[in-house]
Amino acid sequence: MNTKCLAGIALICLPLAVTAQAQSPRPPQIQSPVVHPDRRVTFNFKAPNAKKVELSAQFLKTNQPLAADTSGVWSITVGPVGPNLYPYNFVVDGVGIADPVNQELFPNERFKASLVDIPGDQPSLHSVQDVPHGEISYCFYVSKTLTRTRPLLVYTPPGYREGKKKYPVLYLVSGTTDTEETWFRAGRVNFILDNLIAQKKAVPMIVAMPYGNMMMGTPPPMSPQAAEMYQVFNEELFDGILPYVEANYRVSRDREKRAIAGFSRGGGQSLFAGVQNLDKFAWIGSYSAYLTPEVFDKYFTSAAADPKATNKKLKLLWLGVGKADFLYQQAAEFDNYLKGKNIEHHSLVTEGGHTWMNARHYLAETLQLYFK
Amino acid sequence: MNTKCLAGIALICLPLAVTAQAQSPRPPQIQSPVVHPDRRVTFNFKAPNAKKVELSAQFLKTNQPLAADTSGVWSITVGPVGPNLYPYNFVVDGVGIADPVNQELFPNERFKASLVDIPGDQPSLHSVQDVPHGEISYCFYVSKTLTRTRPLLVYTPPGYREGKKKYPVLYLVSGTTDTEETWFRAGRVNFILDNLIAQKKAVPMIVAMPYGNMMMGTPPPMSPQAAEMYQVFNEELFDGILPYVEANYRVSRDREKRAIAGFSRGGGQSLFAGVQNLDKFAWIGSYSAYLTPEVFDKYFTSAAADPKATNKKLKLLWLGVGKADFLYQQAAEFDNYLKGKNIEHHSLVTEGGHTWMNARHYLAETLQLYFK
Repeated sequence: MNTKCLAGIALICLPLAVTAQAQSPRPPQIQSPVVHPDRRVTFNFKAPNAKKVELSAQFLKTNQPLAADTSGVWSITVGPVGPNLYPYNFVVDGVGIADPVNQELFPNERFKASLVDIPGDQPSLHSVQDVPHGEISYCFYVSKTLTRTRPLLVYTPPGYREGKKKYPVLYLVSGTTDTEETWFRAGRVNFILDNLIAQKKAVPMIVAMPYGNMMMGTPPPMSPQAAEMYQVFNEELFDGILPYVEANYRVSRDREKRAIAGFSRGGGQSLFAGVQNLDKFAWIGSYSAYLTPEVFDKYFTSAAADPKATNKKLKLLWLGVGKADFLYQQAAEFDNYLKGKNIEHHSLVTEGGHTWMNARHYLAETLQLYFK
Repeated sequence: MNTKCLAGIALICLPLAVTAQAQSPRPPQIQSPVVHPDRRVTFNFKAPNAKKVELSAQFLKTNQPLAADTSGVWSITVGPVGPNLYPYNFVVDGVGIADPVNQELFPNERFKASLVDIPGDQPSLHSVQDVPHGEISYCFYVSKTLTRTRPLLVYTPPGYREGKKKYPVLYLVSGTTDTEETWFRAGRVNFILDNLIAQKKAVPMIVAMPYGNMMMGTPPPMSPQAAEMYQVFNEELFDGILPYVEANYRVSRDREKRAIAGFSRGGGQSLFAGVQNLDKFAWIGSYSAYLTPEVFDKYFTSAAADPKATNKKLKLLWLGVGKADFLYQQAAEFDNYLKGKNIEHHSLVTEGGHTWMNARHYLAETLQLYFK
């Protein structure tokens, strides 16, 4: 890429028998992040010409400045940091960038960030443990709604390939500016499920993760296209995603073996698609999301008109939100609205905000409930 | 992440019924890259505090400066650019970064870059076309060699899931600083194969893409660990990767249905593993790589001692390199060495250098030869 990278590549891709450069001194490669045993973390970043480098991280309340050494390597050590997997990036003279030497990327449409994993005393639920592993498959299906080929990620549990049985299926939708990869990379859905299945705390299931952004390009958020987004997603879900999954994977078509859940916008999409289609979904999870009473009244007349019938169909309507979430107030109002309508649901209010740490937490909670 | 991103998320993840902010003006989101019909390309990048922003791209001979407008958005329009998929990044005050708003990332251990696709008059071989699509599966296996869980990507051709037949298998290894994802994301192996299979130009096959970097951490390139890297990769290949693939996928175990190929370091690894193990591989591809005569003489005594037997076993030994590749001279010497040893092989010398455009080109050429 740039000359420095190419020089680096040229040097280190020389095969083993070429030894002419063996003695030439070579600066040590930068490592970042470095997680210390006491859970402090050092971040290193080379930028000799930068005026100001800050660390932006979801375990920090405010950005923290890095300090540069004479070689132009900026560093900061923070913490101890509580065990979790956190998004972070460097803000270099005002521009947020991913950590160049960290392979763990946070997939997003609009910005680039990285992930740092702080282990606890016990292996975390999202960590890679010595248990049988499922797979994540990247599939490509033709969307009639958007008339183009779209990506879809599908988790299959350990043993899926050699087996013959059918599995329940969770449709799991990510949030605004997330991509179809975010539940995999930042949500770690595969490792969480591998671990929960090994511990017999979750039912082996298939998880289909669509790309929830149904807007071609990026229309303004309150434009008519955006206002139609929930309905457009429903169309995609029922005309594109479900048929693809059911044609290509051994999934049950029983409504009691189908769940839909999502984070942020994906939570709204899941509520919208799920409550409107109780003939198709018996399990619904809303992670850091809500619907307004207006939307509920307008689109869910049948669900609201006969709460008894609705409650009978709903095996689980689960809502989770953090107290510091900027959507907390609306989520609490939605919760109250459901209570007023006598629609049974389960609520979890946690610490924290509109973060992927909470998204993962809610996912892990509900994976232990679905299909039981 | 940083405050601006969070503000953006907050705004655009409000559900459709919240319209209070509908009238508040909102700056248009930056689009980058923008490919024009005449194949010029505009790159846009917001960095109000940057002193200097350059475009580094594999279609440019030297970095080109972007110019800033009064809002701090830097732009450049280049080209027309020849049809291909190119890596590029922005060099911001000396630091190379991926395009923040481009989802197409170039996977790499040590730097972050993006990809821009310039279409031609005809759909390119790596483009998403209206043909049946295979899948890319992310698998996780336990490496005895490195005593940890490692990733492996596996392409399965269209129709694989519903079928029962066994397929030939190509082990495809990427280069230094590449990751297990680079052949997927930058190599587009899945779309190339989907298209070649649809055109009946390639045999439906499975492609297994390991993470070729066998060095724990990043030892200096000429250290003993690095020198042992080829042999360590062989161990991983035969004790970890092949057994995993053969246990989990319907692949033939016939040597004539097994190929190994790679780019750069992965090409060296493929030559090393392949020629040493002609009982396991009948097809070997070296893309922009070589072995030194010293290595060949030391490790391939049997292959060199009886070229007639070697030629009989080798269905294909294929070498491709670009005239501008910094390894061209060594690759040409290797070619001559093979000629001197009477070991039959096919050579392709192209324009261009040590690039992923050439890697993809060589892949596409050889996919039409393997297993025929």
